[in-house]
Amino acid sequence: MNEHLTGQSIDGGEAEQHLVVFTPSGRRDYFPTEVSALQAARKLGVDLDSVCGGRGICGRCQVVIAEGQSDDRVSPWNAVEQRYVDKRGALGEGRRLGCQAKICGDIVIDVPADSQVHRQVVRKRAETHPIVIDPVVRLYYVEVREPDMHDPSSDLRRLQMALAEQWGVSETHADLAVLRDLQKTLRAGEWKVTVALRKGRDIVALYPGFRDRGFGVAFDIGSTTIAAHLCDLASGEVLASAGLMNPQIRFGEDLMSRVSYVMMNPGGDGELTRTVREAVDQLIGEAAHEAGVERADILEATIVGNPIMHHLFLGLDPTELGGAPFALTLDGAFETPARQLGLNVAPGAFVYCLPCIAGHVGADTAGVVLAEAPYLSDELTLVVDVGTNAELVFGNKERLIACSSPTGPAFEGAQISCGQRAAPGAIERVRIDRVTLEPKFKVIGSDLWSDEPAFDEATRQTGVTGVCGSGIIEVIAEMFLAGVISRDGVIDGALAATFPRVEAVGRTFAYVVREGEPRLVIYQTDVRAIQLAKAALYAGAKLLIERAGGAAPQRVTLAGAFGSHIDVTYAMALGLIPDCDLAHVAAAGNAAGTGARIALLNLAARAEIEDVVRRVEKIETAIEPRFQEHFVAAMALPNKVDAFPNLAKVLTLPAAKAGDDDSGRRRRRR
Amino acid sequence: MNEHLTGQSIDGGEAEQHLVVFTPSGRRDYFPTEVSALQAARKLGVDLDSVCGGRGICGRCQVVIAEGQSDDRVSPWNAVEQRYVDKRGALGEGRRLGCQAKICGDIVIDVPADSQVHRQVVRKRAETHPIVIDPVVRLYYVEVREPDMHDPSSDLRRLQMALAEQWGVSETHADLAVLRDLQKTLRAGEWKVTVALRKGRDIVALYPGFRDRGFGVAFDIGSTTIAAHLCDLASGEVLASAGLMNPQIRFGEDLMSRVSYVMMNPGGDGELTRTVREAVDQLIGEAAHEAGVERADILEATIVGNPIMHHLFLGLDPTELGGAPFALTLDGAFETPARQLGLNVAPGAFVYCLPCIAGHVGADTAGVVLAEAPYLSDELTLVVDVGTNAELVFGNKERLIACSSPTGPAFEGAQISCGQRAAPGAIERVRIDRVTLEPKFKVIGSDLWSDEPAFDEATRQTGVTGVCGSGIIEVIAEMFLAGVISRDGVIDGALAATFPRVEAVGRTFAYVVREGEPRLVIYQTDVRAIQLAKAALYAGAKLLIERAGGAAPQRVTLAGAFGSHIDVTYAMALGLIPDCDLAHVAAAGNAAGTGARIALLNLAARAEIEDVVRRVEKIETAIEPRFQEHFVAAMALPNKVDAFPNLAKVLTLPAAKAGDDDSGRRRRRR
Repeated sequence: MNEHLTGQSIDGGEAEQHLVVFTPSGRRDYFPTEVSALQAARKLGVDLDSVCGGRGICGRCQVVIAEGQSDDRVSPWNAVEQRYVDKRGALGEGRRLGCQAKICGDIVIDVPADSQVHRQVVRKRAETHPIVIDPVVRLYYVEVREPDMHDPSSDLRRLQMALAEQWGVSETHADLAVLRDLQKTLRAGEWKVTVALRKGRDIVALYPGFRDRGFGVAFDIGSTTIAAHLCDLASGEVLASAGLMNPQIRFGEDLMSRVSYVMMNPGGDGELTRTVREAVDQLIGEAAHEAGVERADILEATIVGNPIMHHLFLGLDPTELGGAPFALTLDGAFETPARQLGLNVAPGAFVYCLPCIAGHVGADTAGVVLAEAPYLSDELTLVVDVGTNAELVFGNKERLIACSSPTGPAFEGAQISCGQRAAPGAIERVRIDRVTLEPKFKVIGSDLWSDEPAFDEATRQTGVTGVCGSGIIEVIAEMFLAGVISRDGVIDGALAATFPRVEAVGRTFAYVVREGEPRLVIYQTDVRAIQLAKAALYAGAKLLIERAGGAAPQRVTLAGAFGSHIDVTYAMALGLIPDCDLAHVAAAGNAAGTGARIALLNLAARAEIEDVVRRVEKIETAIEPRFQEHFVAAMALPNKVDAFPNLAKVLTLPAAKAGDDDSGRRRRRR
Repeated sequence: MNEHLTGQSIDGGEAEQHLVVFTPSGRRDYFPTEVSALQAARKLGVDLDSVCGGRGICGRCQVVIAEGQSDDRVSPWNAVEQRYVDKRGALGEGRRLGCQAKICGDIVIDVPADSQVHRQVVRKRAETHPIVIDPVVRLYYVEVREPDMHDPSSDLRRLQMALAEQWGVSETHADLAVLRDLQKTLRAGEWKVTVALRKGRDIVALYPGFRDRGFGVAFDIGSTTIAAHLCDLASGEVLASAGLMNPQIRFGEDLMSRVSYVMMNPGGDGELTRTVREAVDQLIGEAAHEAGVERADILEATIVGNPIMHHLFLGLDPTELGGAPFALTLDGAFETPARQLGLNVAPGAFVYCLPCIAGHVGADTAGVVLAEAPYLSDELTLVVDVGTNAELVFGNKERLIACSSPTGPAFEGAQISCGQRAAPGAIERVRIDRVTLEPKFKVIGSDLWSDEPAFDEATRQTGVTGVCGSGIIEVIAEMFLAGVISRDGVIDGALAATFPRVEAVGRTFAYVVREGEPRLVIYQTDVRAIQLAKAALYAGAKLLIERAGGAAPQRVTLAGAFGSHIDVTYAMALGLIPDCDLAHVAAAGNAAGTGARIALLNLAARAEIEDVVRRVEKIETAIEPRFQEHFVAAMALPNKVDAFPNLAKVLTLPAAKAGDDDSGRRRRRR
């Protein structure tokens, strides 16, 4: 016998052996006649999907016989494949069902991307890595032996044996919530059922007959809003997104007032927990409805949130998070049955919560880190997530450092006299004429500037109601660039005599952004509030950079809603973030939610973020003397022109001559 | 250096080394000066208890310095020991706290039985093996590092670190129900807490400060009654027992009528589940109250019950158990959080259910097998558990075979015209005068025979209300022995002319056990009912014996309430059980409950019974043709005199001449 005939055989027998090569994996071996492509793939560990286990039902194991299709080296198209096509529609060009195409000679078998379990989902932003599917819950179609009087084994045991024999999955376990309907489901499916199996161990759900789609939901539980993304667990596709205001707002607008509510009201934590869980469950209903799936088909959920939301959702009293030393009850990743959290999904579904990093740096930041993956990058990256406080992570694959900066809620429009949340009617863009000091602005909901003729008509519905976070950044940056405020944040009272937009208010001065109803004015106190907030944010970044050795960030990523709305140029002009090539400064959108989605779709990503969070260095800004120094130094606008070489390329910054802050603008006025 | 000084050291250093020998284990090694007896024991894996981890608080590590106490080879009595004694009372003669007594020279250290974790609990019956304590849940006292701003680790993580550092226990896990009070408990205990840890992994409960007792409850959930035993998990002592009628009785007296209720009433299984869980929870309350312990100190529970009760308690629909092929949902051992079953105990406590053997042979039988342990014996043992049906297990350490025999409820007094449940006032013993055929009897609640003068006075309270199961066995056996009924069970009508106790009832005859109110009569149909029941039981035993090769049992154990009440001689006389040396026939009491108690106290016993149940051969009598043959053959009373050589030694059996069944009695009468 030649080597061809004596190669390693799937059955070790003496039958004729054929060389089978899989692409793109390159795995290869000899197999005897009549072995199916799916069997060969399994034997070699080639990533080829299957839900029905080779019965020609699911169509997940489609392959292309890249070489050998035309001659007799593969079995001909058969009745099972024809039945599949008749029922489910044609396969792609040159495709066969891997479970039906049998090897009759040397062949090359290509596994298309959509037939792989570990397929990739490309994300919108070019700089982000694709999400790889690594299913936490998989579906297994099995045929279970019927009970008979000769064999007293239970229905569960026979189901477990079917999983072991037909899929090689042993040591499976089912909770009572799943067992409750086991007998009815087996009989309804006439002993053919689809098992949703979590991590190859826990039976999450059981369906009569064949089923090939399972779903999951990723949640971002914010203090203000809760967002949900319902995904197909096999394709990674987002089928529906839903969001709502966090109903806990009635217990306190910001987190600390909710913690106070808990402290003042015995049992208040239970009330807050119930409220947020109901909201999450409601979102599940909405997303399921939108996607046209049943709640019982939702097999897994993931959660990110700041430490207080994380604790309240899990039913843990957040009181300790209300004061130093801010001790978390729990920081590691945590998973628990969904029904224990009051969520109505598949009976055995679990909820996975990403780990918290520290008392102020929560699972939301872990989500951001997972989504942006600075730990995989060579580039020194600064990730900034601005909410009521700002969480910062800095570093690269060598080292990551994290902290929370006490910015307060000024960036969200709170504590600003004309501030408001980002909503239609809120001013989000502002420009101030360098000569006349007259402003123009845009509001959310319209693309027109306020000096364009159609503006009033276009904003009749919404009106102009206030200034949102990004608008405040721009108006104060523009006031600085136009010379209305000095580097140390003082509104120049001398301008009031000449320019109607600058007016005296007691012993200080103010800038009128808009006359009319409501009249929108930036007071000296507003400038101070933003200075404090931006100084805190900048000091946090500075502290991290310094701790990492001093090298400037090569990339700055702004996560969260605030980051999506602001113009990064203005953020840098105001000194919120350190200098960086503006081409490498970008908003990441809801990166925390993306992190939750990655954790939903990829089991390995969970281990990855858990490991990263364990290794990340945590800095508590409150006890770092250098933080105070940086904070004080960062009060000026912008800290130093020469610290912002990249910014200087795109904006004309006021000259940084001390004691002569407004000379530039007076020069232009003359 | 001599060998003495160079022996293996606990720290590998060059310090002076002393030979330490532990008794009774015989383990020995060299240790340097100042190592405590407890440390040395741990190093050598000597079974020496400790809850406080060597802080001189718990007193569990008491040892006797058997050699070396009097000279300077052990450190002197110290302040910690004195404090313990002042607070908790004197130690036994010659005892030291193992954590305080330090090695200063060559010594022999004896570990008394009560200082061992794996101590033995001797049982009442001489033939049973003692229960070895192998704790499922253990208590660990730890001192937890306080949180501070420099270290953002959570309270749980610091607790876990304390367990790892102070006890070498890593990878611990806590459910949300436990985590809920974690922060409050740590602070209430000023960072000193006692952790109840299950299987070295799950945190079941957490107590502020030091705590050295934990409890568990073993349940036997019967169709008629539910019994609970509350035990100290460390000593094995039963601190309280409680029982109540199964409140499901209102849905049906026997199991099948409860299954029918479920079939007829949608949601009826939920109702039955709620009812039994409430009863079990109520029993927990009663037992805890009696023992003076808190519900929150109950750390584990175990359950035995027949398949239908097992399923209903777990919330599994028993419908399939109502008809062939009697498929269980679940047969293996199962554990689940207690709160999932509605039990109010320690927040993280688990309930362990023993495995079911087959659709008719439940976790109660598994409990009996564990308690009687025929699988450890050389003797061929027949274990019989009679309830509504009878479960039989036969074999020895080579092989075990089990079946269920459809005896029906006749042995429980049901379907017998004068029958009643075993309760005060029920006739339990009967003798019939061989010459006059006059009966005498005893009732439950009195030790007097009915022909004794004080009988009426003694039974004034209870009256004489009926005949219980054991009374029915005796009266029918006595009727047979007195010649009132023939070997084939016919009441001899010819006697009616001579003996007032025998009377005609239509075309058959009856025997009057008692005149008066109520008048208690054994009708021909009653004899038939008992014949059917005993034939079923005997046929089951015969089938098992035959399957095992035919050797007669060397020991017969009767489990359950019925077995405790009947006189085994009469049981054998009537042919309920096969012949066996009567010295080796005994009642085991509530062996199922004992099995639950063993599983509660001994973790290894769980693995043991799970393994035994997996290996036990199951026979379904309904499909065994031989069962029908044995059944028919066993209708006669007793089957064959020559099949009962042991019985013949103690009772005069009627001559077994066919067609001449009553010749003996007539002979005596003449």
